[in-house]
Amino acid sequence: MNKKTQVNAAILIIGNEILSGRTKDTNTSTLAIWLNTLGVKVEEVRVIPDIEETIVNTLNILRKKYNYIFTTGGIGPTHDDITAKSISKAFGLKYEINKEAYKILESYYKPGEFNEGRQKMCWMPANAKLILNPTSGAPGFIVENVFTLPGVPSILQSMLGSLKNTIVGGEPIISKTINLKTVESEIAKSLEFVQNNNKDVEIGSYPFFRAGKLGVAIVLRSENQSKIDNCNSQIMEFVKKKNIEIVKDN
Amino acid sequence: MNKKTQVNAAILIIGNEILSGRTKDTNTSTLAIWLNTLGVKVEEVRVIPDIEETIVNTLNILRKKYNYIFTTGGIGPTHDDITAKSISKAFGLKYEINKEAYKILESYYKPGEFNEGRQKMCWMPANAKLILNPTSGAPGFIVENVFTLPGVPSILQSMLGSLKNTIVGGEPIISKTINLKTVESEIAKSLEFVQNNNKDVEIGSYPFFRAGKLGVAIVLRSENQSKIDNCNSQIMEFVKKKNIEIVKDN
Repeated sequence: MNKKTQVNAAILIIGNEILSGRTKDTNTSTLAIWLNTLGVKVEEVRVIPDIEETIVNTLNILRKKYNYIFTTGGIGPTHDDITAKSISKAFGLKYEINKEAYKILESYYKPGEFNEGRQKMCWMPANAKLILNPTSGAPGFIVENVFTLPGVPSILQSMLGSLKNTIVGGEPIISKTINLKTVESEIAKSLEFVQNNNKDVEIGSYPFFRAGKLGVAIVLRSENQSKIDNCNSQIMEFVKKKNIEIVKDN
Repeated sequence: MNKKTQVNAAILIIGNEILSGRTKDTNTSTLAIWLNTLGVKVEEVRVIPDIEETIVNTLNILRKKYNYIFTTGGIGPTHDDITAKSISKAFGLKYEINKEAYKILESYYKPGEFNEGRQKMCWMPANAKLILNPTSGAPGFIVENVFTLPGVPSILQSMLGSLKNTIVGGEPIISKTINLKTVESEIAKSLEFVQNNNKDVEIGSYPFFRAGKLGVAIVLRSENQSKIDNCNSQIMEFVKKKNIEIVKDN
């Protein structure tokens, strides 16, 4: 793949616990930051319920639209874990015991502890490639451009290391944050001027209120360091002119 | 509206800062928990970038599919705040100064401080109904079934109070959580049996690892308290039989 191509991804979060508000999603942030370092830009996230038809339909839309899809959640041993079955259906693949996963789990658990619930975690789309799980044994899996990971954040995070060489990204996305002691309306016009002169750099403006400090974080993102540097200097120009204080990161 | 009808909602999070992983979304949880108390179930969340075409297209899909749509983000004074303009376009409405919003902000700011950037926050779809903002002045707005709120969590939260009587929900969704000192595979079969006998109750199973405790949270959700109670007793039966310890919430 040409390294200069923009490579993108979508995240599909499968889980009633996020939709009910019970659990706050942190996997998006973990995946997005990690993917950025590999030169992959997350362009869409969807959170959907544990309903087979919804999973199948949504996955079939996303996997044709983006280079990579990462699903999280729904691959445990209980009745509400229907991700593997739904992905099999989306790809028209047989849902069956993955022999490699079976072997891994059989040796992971003590004799007699590899019960029916745990055996469910070996059921996957036919010929799925495994994603090893150094934390709790049960592997995730890959089918074509779809990477299926668990929902528990610490487990998900521990599984990313083994995927590094599987993902072919573009140039890593570099970001620079400038924290200013100002309000957005004070810099809106100057910032828009800089954005118009630097179309290739994504400039975001985010007000913050933390530890009694009120300010604006300006975030520059691009695959090109010199474009970021150039944009940064233009921002520094109006910051100086307006006599705005720069806030150090804590 | 018949109070028994299921009323649903989608949340549309507009913001590169969530997609880049820089910011973790907490507004979904805030909105979902609040909507549950009003009898509205969140059935989908999408996170999309600050791109007009994407906002217009996504909004036009969601607003026809769900009873209520809540958008968050992109209504501040800077160049990347394009939500109000995009929503105008989605509805085919004129994007113009809302006179009521203008009056509010004119009196909110000190004389001379109501600059061009701040005036941008009065631009809305024609005839939008305002959502008052007790925290920082700039209102959100309603067009048909679409509620537009800011992205800053504390400001969003402060604006929900005034919306209570605008949302017509169904029966509030009640939930009960049972925390067990066990692992999912131990209870998977029994829990599936209870789910099959209680089709109207949504039963979720979520492993947890906190403060050295390992366990499973079973979450029951329904509009009907007696159905939850019934389901709870059936779970308690197998919990006792299996001699599983119940973990108290901290």
